[in-house]
Amino acid sequence: MSVPPRIELLALDGLPLVQPGDDLAGLIAAALDRAGLVLRVGDVLVVAQKIVSKAEGRRVALADVTPSVPALALAQQVGKDARLVELILRESRRVVRKAPGVLIVEHRLGLVMANAGIDQSNVEDGFALLLPEDPDASAERLRARLAPSAGMRLGIVINDSFGRPWRRGTVGTAIGAAGLPALVDRRGEADLFGRPLQVTMIALADEIAASASLLMGPAAEGLPVVLLRGVPWSAPASPVRALLRPANEDLFR
Amino acid sequence: MSVPPRIELLALDGLPLVQPGDDLAGLIAAALDRAGLVLRVGDVLVVAQKIVSKAEGRRVALADVTPSVPALALAQQVGKDARLVELILRESRRVVRKAPGVLIVEHRLGLVMANAGIDQSNVEDGFALLLPEDPDASAERLRARLAPSAGMRLGIVINDSFGRPWRRGTVGTAIGAAGLPALVDRRGEADLFGRPLQVTMIALADEIAASASLLMGPAAEGLPVVLLRGVPWSAPASPVRALLRPANEDLFR
Repeated sequence: MSVPPRIELLALDGLPLVQPGDDLAGLIAAALDRAGLVLRVGDVLVVAQKIVSKAEGRRVALADVTPSVPALALAQQVGKDARLVELILRESRRVVRKAPGVLIVEHRLGLVMANAGIDQSNVEDGFALLLPEDPDASAERLRARLAPSAGMRLGIVINDSFGRPWRRGTVGTAIGAAGLPALVDRRGEADLFGRPLQVTMIALADEIAASASLLMGPAAEGLPVVLLRGVPWSAPASPVRALLRPANEDLFR
Repeated sequence: MSVPPRIELLALDGLPLVQPGDDLAGLIAAALDRAGLVLRVGDVLVVAQKIVSKAEGRRVALADVTPSVPALALAQQVGKDARLVELILRESRRVVRKAPGVLIVEHRLGLVMANAGIDQSNVEDGFALLLPEDPDASAERLRARLAPSAGMRLGIVINDSFGRPWRRGTVGTAIGAAGLPALVDRRGEADLFGRPLQVTMIALADEIAASASLLMGPAAEGLPVVLLRGVPWSAPASPVRALLRPANEDLFR
């Protein structure tokens, strides 16, 4: 009997509350060490956006934010704190949709998401937390620091909870990736009957991000790092940038 | 040191190609048995839509389909086989968007998806495969048959590959569920600082569906059943129907 394919997900325990300026790679390495885990070829570490943002000092005091006139108008329209709306607009290319309590924007990174990913859960009162400046680069820095040897295949995914059109509830979604193919392109491969596959592009980083969310929970701070062991992939590495659909290919903005 | 939370995903090996009328629960039970696996409390089985549809006889011969006048017109507009467009329209409440080669529709089940989920990959030439008549009910039948005892907590998710707005690539997504909360409602819970959580509804069944896709691959037929062990949940069971956002709550249709 052949050994069936198998993936193991392990949440890292005992990470401290991350503070601005913390060495996140060092904290993760220490937590792996305490758990007796040694990274293996093909392992993937999923890291919650919140702790990446915190370590990178992306916390903003609302008291320091002066809303612009457009932010004040929009805040009144959707019923949100004008300083928060100001931050959302600064982080965005444009507003895609608006509704009471929510602004769906195209983030400056190209991510289409609610409130530009700016969160106030698990941040002290009076503060907001922005996405990392460049999450693919954040993932690459973590990969370079955490890979036990320079050439070792190690994947890093930074995830966040995203709402979606048409369906209720959030799903863990990748905002940054390194060392693995965020997008797997299988165009040209055949199905079981030898014909071209119809599903040909797979958002691997998003499937990894979602699976890790099963252990992180919604707060994603009690258990903000999950190790995946056994994820099969062979395509070359690509960042989350490769996952973003250009506006001219998109039917929904 | 406490034991860190852990999930194991195991793909079931050696399932035969499923044929119309096959006893799918029996085939899965036999495959579990051959793998030496005994279902435990809290296990989740993810089953690919294709084998559920095949077992339920949802394969349609295109030669038997006569396209209506609207199907003929639409087929020409988007460049698809008119018989396939006819099947898509029969399975749908309405067309949400159209583009060359693709119709995004609201399926009669309420799922918003490309081509009504009708697939021709891994189906013999000249045939198309429709979604199960009622995937939540299909999941519930599998649950009732596979749970070792009547009261045992066993989750079933039926998944399919979905494209999404804004992002490239497909992600495993739930079309049916039983025995677990497809949607977890955490409204009223507090964050680490004692304030209400901002992310309050989690699409658990979709995160489970996505994680299983990591092992199934795009064809989802070589390895169409994945066992998840260790998924934490406590909310009451809800079907995928609970995940579907009513049109009046939706900004995108």
